[in-house]
Amino acid sequence: MFTITFRLTGSEPVTISATAEENLLDVARKANVAIDAPCSGNGACGKCRVRLVKGLLDSPINRHLTTEEYEAGWRLACCSKVAGDAVIEVPDIASAYRSRMKMADLESPQEVAIFENLRRQLVEAGFHFQSDLEFLEVNLTEPTTDDTMPDNERLIRAVEEATGVPYDSVVLPYSVLKDLCWVLRESEWKVKCVISRDFERIQIRDVLPQSNHDPMVGFALDVGTTTLAGLLVDLQTGKILAKASCGNGQIRYGADVINRIIESEKLGGRKRLQDAVIKESIIPMLAQMYQTAHINPRRIYRMVLAGNTTMNHLALGLYCDPIRMEPFVPSFFRTRYIFVRDIGLRMNPLAELVVAPNIGSYVGGDITAGTLVSMIWNSPELSLFIDLGTNGELVFGNNEFLMSCACSAGPAFEGGDISCGMRATDGAIEACTIDKDTMEPTLTVIGGVAPVGICGSGIIDLIAELFRCGIINGKGKIVREGPRIVRDKHGMGSYILAFQKDTGGVKDVSINEVDIDNFIRAKGAIFSATTTMLSSLGFDPSVIERVYVAGGIGSGINMKNAVTIGMFPDIPLDHFHYIGNSSQAGAYAMLMSTEARTKVFDLARSMTYLELSNEPRYMDEFVAACFLPHTDASLFPSVQQE
Amino acid sequence: MFTITFRLTGSEPVTISATAEENLLDVARKANVAIDAPCSGNGACGKCRVRLVKGLLDSPINRHLTTEEYEAGWRLACCSKVAGDAVIEVPDIASAYRSRMKMADLESPQEVAIFENLRRQLVEAGFHFQSDLEFLEVNLTEPTTDDTMPDNERLIRAVEEATGVPYDSVVLPYSVLKDLCWVLRESEWKVKCVISRDFERIQIRDVLPQSNHDPMVGFALDVGTTTLAGLLVDLQTGKILAKASCGNGQIRYGADVINRIIESEKLGGRKRLQDAVIKESIIPMLAQMYQTAHINPRRIYRMVLAGNTTMNHLALGLYCDPIRMEPFVPSFFRTRYIFVRDIGLRMNPLAELVVAPNIGSYVGGDITAGTLVSMIWNSPELSLFIDLGTNGELVFGNNEFLMSCACSAGPAFEGGDISCGMRATDGAIEACTIDKDTMEPTLTVIGGVAPVGICGSGIIDLIAELFRCGIINGKGKIVREGPRIVRDKHGMGSYILAFQKDTGGVKDVSINEVDIDNFIRAKGAIFSATTTMLSSLGFDPSVIERVYVAGGIGSGINMKNAVTIGMFPDIPLDHFHYIGNSSQAGAYAMLMSTEARTKVFDLARSMTYLELSNEPRYMDEFVAACFLPHTDASLFPSVQQE
Repeated sequence: MFTITFRLTGSEPVTISATAEENLLDVARKANVAIDAPCSGNGACGKCRVRLVKGLLDSPINRHLTTEEYEAGWRLACCSKVAGDAVIEVPDIASAYRSRMKMADLESPQEVAIFENLRRQLVEAGFHFQSDLEFLEVNLTEPTTDDTMPDNERLIRAVEEATGVPYDSVVLPYSVLKDLCWVLRESEWKVKCVISRDFERIQIRDVLPQSNHDPMVGFALDVGTTTLAGLLVDLQTGKILAKASCGNGQIRYGADVINRIIESEKLGGRKRLQDAVIKESIIPMLAQMYQTAHINPRRIYRMVLAGNTTMNHLALGLYCDPIRMEPFVPSFFRTRYIFVRDIGLRMNPLAELVVAPNIGSYVGGDITAGTLVSMIWNSPELSLFIDLGTNGELVFGNNEFLMSCACSAGPAFEGGDISCGMRATDGAIEACTIDKDTMEPTLTVIGGVAPVGICGSGIIDLIAELFRCGIINGKGKIVREGPRIVRDKHGMGSYILAFQKDTGGVKDVSINEVDIDNFIRAKGAIFSATTTMLSSLGFDPSVIERVYVAGGIGSGINMKNAVTIGMFPDIPLDHFHYIGNSSQAGAYAMLMSTEARTKVFDLARSMTYLELSNEPRYMDEFVAACFLPHTDASLFPSVQQE
Repeated sequence: MFTITFRLTGSEPVTISATAEENLLDVARKANVAIDAPCSGNGACGKCRVRLVKGLLDSPINRHLTTEEYEAGWRLACCSKVAGDAVIEVPDIASAYRSRMKMADLESPQEVAIFENLRRQLVEAGFHFQSDLEFLEVNLTEPTTDDTMPDNERLIRAVEEATGVPYDSVVLPYSVLKDLCWVLRESEWKVKCVISRDFERIQIRDVLPQSNHDPMVGFALDVGTTTLAGLLVDLQTGKILAKASCGNGQIRYGADVINRIIESEKLGGRKRLQDAVIKESIIPMLAQMYQTAHINPRRIYRMVLAGNTTMNHLALGLYCDPIRMEPFVPSFFRTRYIFVRDIGLRMNPLAELVVAPNIGSYVGGDITAGTLVSMIWNSPELSLFIDLGTNGELVFGNNEFLMSCACSAGPAFEGGDISCGMRATDGAIEACTIDKDTMEPTLTVIGGVAPVGICGSGIIDLIAELFRCGIINGKGKIVREGPRIVRDKHGMGSYILAFQKDTGGVKDVSINEVDIDNFIRAKGAIFSATTTMLSSLGFDPSVIERVYVAGGIGSGINMKNAVTIGMFPDIPLDHFHYIGNSSQAGAYAMLMSTEARTKVFDLARSMTYLELSNEPRYMDEFVAACFLPHTDASLFPSVQQE
């Protein structure tokens, strides 16, 4: 047995015994030391860097490490084996997550427009856009020696009188009873109740002095495999009170849902995965939102969670094993009677948790909520809704039918599996062009700062431009040379977008042939899913009248370039629309409108699900699509022409 | 500032700063050091003994301490003031409580008879004696690739099929969903549900493999001011699975409800008082019951709590201030929609908490539940139900009307405020006679062991015998001398029941004139409440056809002696019946029978409440009754005759 000591920022070192040849990432997990490992230990992502300070590790050099870095002690934890006592320095993952947390500027016209548009569309579709929770002001008569009715009865009688709902149908639960004595007397018997109506009953959710002017708040949350995005909303007006996003803390257990499920099956894994998203991600995000918007968590009366089937099962602390094992049966598609407190969040004790419904093991609530927002169910036009997440999900149809499917695109659209990849946030290259002659790039960087990495929309542009300029061939191999082209000792080529000397960063911002290959597989998955689903209905892509693209790929997505690389079918460019984070927007709509909530459940019930792994042609389609733009160039006449 | 160090058994000493003249009991409470102080600090009970090991205290000698004890360092904490640095040894209150905990022997015929009789009476009165919770066995079809219905839907469909209740009316909450995946697969899709029916809906409370044979359990709890008594019950058969009693941990904050309320009004007091009963009393009692009866707490689906208005408010963690302030308005009489988890008990997460209803600030659920058990509502005979607790409560009436009132008897009936008083448990003298000539006593001791103290029934006998033998006069003063009579330097007399040298105990078991006076005041309160209530209806005691006596006074109560001392009216002895702990028995009935539960709520609604403090004649009646048997001896012809 050897002794491994992990040095952590801001806390005591952790020491654990390990046997020879034990994997260092596993040792760290045993010791409860958090190491960022999105690919969950296959050496692919290069994120699990640690530094060997003293002692021995059996750890080869790796394409993710330069010789200088290796000499300075940097190693990939997932590729290292215990070979003796060692002291390991671990980068601070918590601060890495914190720095990734982002509060939105609610004043920006873009932010305002997203939800204004959504509301307008839903109102036009005939929805009432107002929460079913109400404030009800009641003035009680003060007790006297001749009227010693107890507090709870006094309040219920007043509610009965104000609403006409009979005494026995008014529900006053413990959380309201607990401080009722104090609230009634402090407010001098003038209170307002937060109430909801359920069939013939009224539930009193809260009782406040009439002088309290806290808004009635709801929480809409998109739980993505890679990123969480939350909104605090005034349930009376629909106003966004705070908006934030942050990384999903589960990422250290794997970048995709399969790796997360595998981790959750281990002893204590279900709890670990739930904690990673609830305690390490949602709670810190909420804390920051509360502070920014001056919200008292007890005033949050409802939460809507939209996420894929695995994400919502893990957030609810449920077993996921059957999701990935035939016959792929999850614990739920639809839930009712679940409360925010059940998943360990402290809001109003009666706040219910509405989970956007799943329709299959791999098409979840993010898609049903997103389908609402796409509005494709409201028009006779044949439309395609594509959510580009770590899983790619597609819904095709119109106001008469809807079919969905899912494919595993990997995290490339959100910048994962790409050596300089990052989410669409400050410092990300979100667009670029390349001069065909000089091979010099022109970059658009979010936030107008020096480039740090490249996000999904930037990668699409980059690959399209590299292809257009003949720098890469249809297989994604670099076939030209020049000052921006470098090759390692194995001959693997990279194209440098920004030199370290120019950016002042820690390394060049570049893309290499492995990155390009990863991205081509991701876009190939999307394209082949599209054609497979359409052909199962007897259609080809030319029937598509509208394409709604959603997801964290970034609003800078250039549809022409996405067609150029063969990600989307070659149809007129004005058919494409980027609709942002439709999962979050759908959660917002479900929070604000009972009819929207009902509609999402109806959509989920009516949507059919095509399991691509049961379609024999899907694999062939996928292989054919892993080429720029496609092995069958005739499918992309506009690209050919150019 | 001085430094006070408290030495505790089995834990680290606690040190706190204190100012000169600060009360030592207050200092201890600030330091979270538990000292048994039933009278809450007025020097009356003598229970708050601590030992000064080192340093200084300003603390006079007191009638509760002998000179030897005082010289050995013993002091009453409530009568001591800080006068310098000091080290104080505190007797172990926790172990005192533990040693007071008592598990009943369920095999004893007495124990069996109590609940058999109750059930027979209620069944004769037309009640169904079966819980409304049911086991429902369902066999699910195993999922296949052609049938991928999620687990929750699969179960709800099966319940729908088995019961005919439509899908949308079957409630499957989070606690069931959480482990559903595992339970269904481990049981090979053969499960049994615990269900309840509420209006048209079915609630699934639990899902277990069919191979699980745990009983479905309910918890009936009497929360007395001094003593708690709990039962675990098989909800299908009514069988008692475990029975236990223990002291109420709140006793260190005062022996009666008023002192408890006062303490609860202090900063953090509401939480302290709730913790004292829930965490320090109920949870340890339950732990012992679980162990004895091999119960899994998750299998407890319902709890019924019966206690006086203050006790149920404190157990629920509610504010009590308004209970003791005009116009005496509590938070509730009746509650609904309260769960066991709301008060911090971990049973089945859906276990509801039924609280026996209060009818006034000083007549609570113990009395409404007890009235059910007395059966006085089921007969045309004019009957009196008396619950002899720390508060004495009375209900008078028949199947046409019921009137109730409450008086403050103090803890004397349960052995409080009596120097050698104790509860009716092993070592307690429960009965005695005295030879008129020799003044020698003959004692009956519970458990057949050496006498340790004297319980309520024993005190009644003792005072009646002392009075009959002319050892005390009508005022309770000792008027004979002899070997068993001792007097202190102030001339206060004591009668010694058992000498220390004979019992091997720490001191003589005796009763003194202050004890006798306390008891006379207690019995006077009961008698005057009886006559005041009856006369408010235009009756005198001769109309009473039945008297049902309940409470912790002990089953050994001698009704003749109780009449002799003027506690009960002088009516034929065969009118009197002791019915034990009617509050606990009522909670048991409410647990087992929906109709019994409904009946208790109906009784509470129909019962009128007489506030004695509003009756001008009550004070006069009370003063007149503080005499043996009464200042108006003509009210007790049978005593006069003897």
